[in-house]
Amino acid sequence: MSEAAAHVRVVEETPAYWRVVFDYPPFNIVDATIFEGLQDLLARMDASPSLRVVVFESTNPEFYLAHFDLTGKIGNIMTAVGASGLPVLMDTLVRLTKSPVVSIAKIRGCVRGVSSEFVLACDMRFASRENTRLGQPEVGVGLHPGGGGAERLPHLVGRGRALEIVLGANDFDGDTAEKYGYVNRALPDAELDGFIEALARRIASFDQRAIAAAKNLINQVSLPAADRLLDALSSFQSALTWSEAQQRIQALLERGLQRDANFEKRWPALLGTLLET
Amino acid sequence: MSEAAAHVRVVEETPAYWRVVFDYPPFNIVDATIFEGLQDLLARMDASPSLRVVVFESTNPEFYLAHFDLTGKIGNIMTAVGASGLPVLMDTLVRLTKSPVVSIAKIRGCVRGVSSEFVLACDMRFASRENTRLGQPEVGVGLHPGGGGAERLPHLVGRGRALEIVLGANDFDGDTAEKYGYVNRALPDAELDGFIEALARRIASFDQRAIAAAKNLINQVSLPAADRLLDALSSFQSALTWSEAQQRIQALLERGLQRDANFEKRWPALLGTLLET
Amino acid sequence: MSEAAAHVRVVEETPAYWRVVFDYPPFNIVDATIFEGLQDLLARMDASPSLRVVVFESTNPEFYLAHFDLTGKIGNIMTAVGASGLPVLMDTLVRLTKSPVVSIAKIRGCVRGVSSEFVLACDMRFASRENTRLGQPEVGVGLHPGGGGAERLPHLVGRGRALEIVLGANDFDGDTAEKYGYVNRALPDAELDGFIEALARRIASFDQRAIAAAKNLINQVSLPAADRLLDALSSFQSALTWSEAQQRIQALLERGLQRDANFEKRWPALLGTLLET
Repeated sequence: MSEAAAHVRVVEETPAYWRVVFDYPPFNIVDATIFEGLQDLLARMDASPSLRVVVFESTNPEFYLAHFDLTGKIGNIMTAVGASGLPVLMDTLVRLTKSPVVSIAKIRGCVRGVSSEFVLACDMRFASRENTRLGQPEVGVGLHPGGGGAERLPHLVGRGRALEIVLGANDFDGDTAEKYGYVNRALPDAELDGFIEALARRIASFDQRAIAAAKNLINQVSLPAADRLLDALSSFQSALTWSEAQQRIQALLERGLQRDANFEKRWPALLGTLLET
Repeated sequence: MSEAAAHVRVVEETPAYWRVVFDYPPFNIVDATIFEGLQDLLARMDASPSLRVVVFESTNPEFYLAHFDLTGKIGNIMTAVGASGLPVLMDTLVRLTKSPVVSIAKIRGCVRGVSSEFVLACDMRFASRENTRLGQPEVGVGLHPGGGGAERLPHLVGRGRALEIVLGANDFDGDTAEKYGYVNRALPDAELDGFIEALARRIASFDQRAIAAAKNLINQVSLPAADRLLDALSSFQSALTWSEAQQRIQALLERGLQRDANFEKRWPALLGTLLET
Repeated sequence: MSEAAAHVRVVEETPAYWRVVFDYPPFNIVDATIFEGLQDLLARMDASPSLRVVVFESTNPEFYLAHFDLTGKIGNIMTAVGASGLPVLMDTLVRLTKSPVVSIAKIRGCVRGVSSEFVLACDMRFASRENTRLGQPEVGVGLHPGGGGAERLPHLVGRGRALEIVLGANDFDGDTAEKYGYVNRALPDAELDGFIEALARRIASFDQRAIAAAKNLINQVSLPAADRLLDALSSFQSALTWSEAQQRIQALLERGLQRDANFEKRWPALLGTLLET
């Protein structure tokens, strides 16, 4: 098993229903390894005609997927292209949205920035009511969403709430995320596994052609245009070079980002005073 | 009175406000007769310049409109064209959305598949909080929505919830339908009639030109494109010939669909195990 | 200080965060003076590179902004053009949506018609749970929304709720406005000031380039087309000349509109019986 496959682990519950488990200690930071795992998964999904549903979950209840790696371990995911001809970061999310396989995010813990963009690219999102910290904090880091968040959120939650999520750059709990339509539903933590298991097995019992045709019809009227997604990614790449962003990233790393579990859990709340003192 | 007019009954409360009552025992199944009644209604609406509002309701509190007839009694509603040049099924729903007359669905009981697509084509939808079973179960029957559901739902509820409704293929109760934006509101059953009566009479007191201009402006930015609707319908017609769909339809009819009131009330919940044993 | 500047008062809390206070007794009616104040504000915002956030609020807890002046004091706001080349009424709202400065509406009291369209043009809207009366009552006056309401509402709340808001022509309280997505959130009145102060100061601490780039990306997928906005405004100008509208405006002015505080607070509720003796 490759290193990536160990961290993005596939559990074949049945030929029609797989669970994909993020297990990349300490915090499930999204770097080149996670994208390699997702690329391998997509190839495997394409080669599995009996597959209907994939549920994405985490072994770590505190961190679903933390956020984009800010220490440089991102390989060539923004320059190399994937099977769709788009840069790997975008290719991964776009192919997930267009796959005939249904994707369900089962969310517990922290899901920020590119991780929020990952769950927004899943077909459905269900969150733990008690244990969800979901957001797009990029603007508070001197950056902006680059992986589709700015394009997918307005369709889901409307312009006003999308601007609050992106410009406020803070965490949203399960209840607020549900109220805004950021997730399909927030469920009591104790009911989340059972709800998703039942939904996944139900969909897995349906016919492949019916699922694919229905998802395709909905995609035709609900997916953002590729040129909008590319604009956002290329603007994000520029933003990474801005001195303001570099200064804020430095301040976050010094305070404990990607090192200190306690800081990693709550850093978006602190962004409003990041450069003070 | 024609047979269709007896089952899609018009009650002229005032020249400006009509109630249209579905009364087609035993379950208000949507077949060629219902579409004939709706086509007659649309012609009558076009010829009634003083009309402002039509409220659609059912005499049967268990069934608003059940679902598309699966025993073949659909006449030529997918091949013959209506006044708009679209096939009658689509023509009926599209003309309702574009009519200067305001349409309000007052929902009690079961509303599935093409019936959900009917209420989605109404201008507003209000549902009984205690007594609503609304959904698009087509995918669980080996089919997919063909009457605009896949095109109208993402605009109303966002891509994630639209995919859950369509791919999960299950019933939604009043509260969840309201939370998702599938209906305008769910109201306590005892308040539903009074609320809609007041709203309808209020709108009926307004001027025809103001209503028509306002609805037209909103339509310009909110109706799906005709080519998308036609794509869905033509794909649905193909799906009806798929062997998977035929097998599931057969299984449903054998278990009691369109015959057994108890089965008719709860069949979407059973779709996940339809082909087992 | 000009008269307009006295009624649309700018309080520079910091170079990055301004409050703009509507103070135009008795009811903050929206006339040419208010638009002059907003135009002056926009010019000043454009000339203030350190500015990040503007919060719009009212000194009068009963009236945020009442509604469009119906006594003729609207100057040339529909004929003269502003900096964008659009008529001043539209120019004001469109430039606010496209400004790199973030706009937040803090809503207490009555906000109807063009005032609703003003808060819809703000980036975010937060409302007092106990004290909000928000709506688009134009259709009940024989008119229709002309300042972007018909174009912005469907994106925020979906077609069904947009049609209910516009064709029902009634007030929405804070809870319903939140449930519909008409406002971002309704907050307990006692918490509203603190919530917005914290959010505004937080955003004010972020970098200008990051804010502007993020808002621009979201705008690309969420703003209505200019030709749609112009169509609505030009149709509204025609509607003002309709005899039905003139009759209803006359009836409202006779009953106390723009004169009697008690009538001014509750007039939309009375529109359903306006022309009855």
